[in-house]
Amino acid sequence: MRAARYYGKEDIRIEEIEEPVVKEGWIKIKPAFVGICGTDLHEYLGGPNFSPITPHPVTKETIPITIGHEFSGTVTALGEGVTNFKVGQNVSIQPTIYDTTCYACKNGLENVCYNAGFVGLSGWGGGVSDAVCVPANYVLPLPDNIPLDVAALVEPLAVGWHAVSRSPLKEDSSILILGGGPIGIAVINALKARGCGKIIVSEISSSRQNFCTHFGADVILDPRKDDVAARSKEETGGLGVDIVFDCAGVASGLKSACQGIRARGTVVNVAIWEKEIPFQPNELVWKEGTYVACLGYVQQDFKDVIEAIASGRIGRMKPRDMITSKISLENVVEHGHKELIHNKDKHVKILVQI
Amino acid sequence: MRAARYYGKEDIRIEEIEEPVVKEGWIKIKPAFVGICGTDLHEYLGGPNFSPITPHPVTKETIPITIGHEFSGTVTALGEGVTNFKVGQNVSIQPTIYDTTCYACKNGLENVCYNAGFVGLSGWGGGVSDAVCVPANYVLPLPDNIPLDVAALVEPLAVGWHAVSRSPLKEDSSILILGGGPIGIAVINALKARGCGKIIVSEISSSRQNFCTHFGADVILDPRKDDVAARSKEETGGLGVDIVFDCAGVASGLKSACQGIRARGTVVNVAIWEKEIPFQPNELVWKEGTYVACLGYVQQDFKDVIEAIASGRIGRMKPRDMITSKISLENVVEHGHKELIHNKDKHVKILVQI
Repeated sequence: MRAARYYGKEDIRIEEIEEPVVKEGWIKIKPAFVGICGTDLHEYLGGPNFSPITPHPVTKETIPITIGHEFSGTVTALGEGVTNFKVGQNVSIQPTIYDTTCYACKNGLENVCYNAGFVGLSGWGGGVSDAVCVPANYVLPLPDNIPLDVAALVEPLAVGWHAVSRSPLKEDSSILILGGGPIGIAVINALKARGCGKIIVSEISSSRQNFCTHFGADVILDPRKDDVAARSKEETGGLGVDIVFDCAGVASGLKSACQGIRARGTVVNVAIWEKEIPFQPNELVWKEGTYVACLGYVQQDFKDVIEAIASGRIGRMKPRDMITSKISLENVVEHGHKELIHNKDKHVKILVQI
Repeated sequence: MRAARYYGKEDIRIEEIEEPVVKEGWIKIKPAFVGICGTDLHEYLGGPNFSPITPHPVTKETIPITIGHEFSGTVTALGEGVTNFKVGQNVSIQPTIYDTTCYACKNGLENVCYNAGFVGLSGWGGGVSDAVCVPANYVLPLPDNIPLDVAALVEPLAVGWHAVSRSPLKEDSSILILGGGPIGIAVINALKARGCGKIIVSEISSSRQNFCTHFGADVILDPRKDDVAARSKEETGGLGVDIVFDCAGVASGLKSACQGIRARGTVVNVAIWEKEIPFQPNELVWKEGTYVACLGYVQQDFKDVIEAIASGRIGRMKPRDMITSKISLENVVEHGHKELIHNKDKHVKILVQI
């Protein structure tokens, strides 16, 4: 079968490899659509980061690793003992690999499993291939009204959903989102589905600004021209916002976030940071602010997002507007990674159609 | 009357000034005991910081300012309309000055009032004098079984109480406290009153280590010798602690805090920071940690601490063990500020006896 495999920095090869054999309790899936995300680009440009160069504690694998962790597909075979799925059924895959034995896993926090990894980054194959096998409890059934391309967006939407779940959101909470890329847009989608007050977005790219407005942002700021903290206060009657979602991960943004919240406001960090930054905790102290870190999602976030799309709380068609290109498996690097690196501003989500 | 007045860096003068006149709705108090705290030392060594050099938004005063914000005393006169106190009654004073009109005040967060100040730092007189007048709602009645010297400790104990209130404390929470000075000890007192699991303290000074053990710490670490994060994990079955209270405010401590918590652990910052520090938010991201800032206390914390001392939840006599010296008003700088600067490790709390 075909598989796009990561060998290291700027080295992804389309190869013919053996099809995986489905094990007891596992499910074999033919991937349909696979999203490429920032983590994939980080691996391509500067990795291996997540991709294991020594055996991963759970998968025991090292690079080369088949890529693709944001994907939908169709069940093609069931391992022994799997009775709650059927062949031909469309599914979404929750790709966090966890070991079930650690403190985090035992407390329902598999996203921060002490031995965590990802299908498509740490082993067990990946979406950019003709077949992949995963444990049955990583697989979520899709209702008939969610098409497979939209289903590939469940993963990034779950990141936004999880971040909102980690925040003290109330129906009238005022919001500042730093960064209007795919994750910022996922946060907007989650907020619109769950209800909130004014949504302010700080984003440099004009095309991403337009996407944010399309998905529901009320106010767009440009951090190169606007004083983001001061403007956030202006937009909230001088108070500052209730919640900031930092989807950018840059030092100036953290400062704006701390200065842009009101008393007892919350900064939710959804970003992964490249390096240490200067930070003055007093910025939070004077307001008794709270800084909440989040990472990925748990199973429940996937269920919630699928339910929200199916029920129309996240408009059934609107997530599809996040898809800015569909490409073939063979072109994953040229039209996927490289396009996102060189023409990032044009895109929200590029899907590989298998 | 006598008053110790702050004129600027290393300039506190004992002067004769006019007695204040009690206004409608205010109460006049003869201070009994006044604690000297880290903020006083910061003002003395490097200020003015809190002390206003332009008119304070609420008090309209500038330096010179009468010092002393941690104090107990006896009511000597009631302003017109004050009916819930009587002359001769012993009281504790909640010294945060707030303007009641801002968003924070309207939401019961007077400690982060946008125009906040302190009696004894920002105007309205201070404890290190023969008389002080404050609004009646800043005054808390003392039960008969709390002596006036112990009552002067209510303010620092309220700082610890408030920090614990801002944390997700459960009866079995494991705790790491960074810094075993007066605030670290106040946190220990609050934790012992409210119940928790193992208390680990990281502190350099051997005399402060002994104080921490006396007040209830289970494990003492020395950050110069011990790997605080690694040892905290060892002491909690490999998991890391549930909650860190950072009462030190140094960069290496923040790193230990982030590394010393378990998945979804919380770092409560009780420190004021002198400068920016390097911070890598990923340290919190991998565990979905939360960083909670806190500042001072609200009225309810004062009430809770007074109740906890009176009822014996904070052992009635044990807070008194925090008092390491009693000095006269005339000696406030020589035996107070200077003693704390040069012989800090010998002391928890020096009280000025008026």
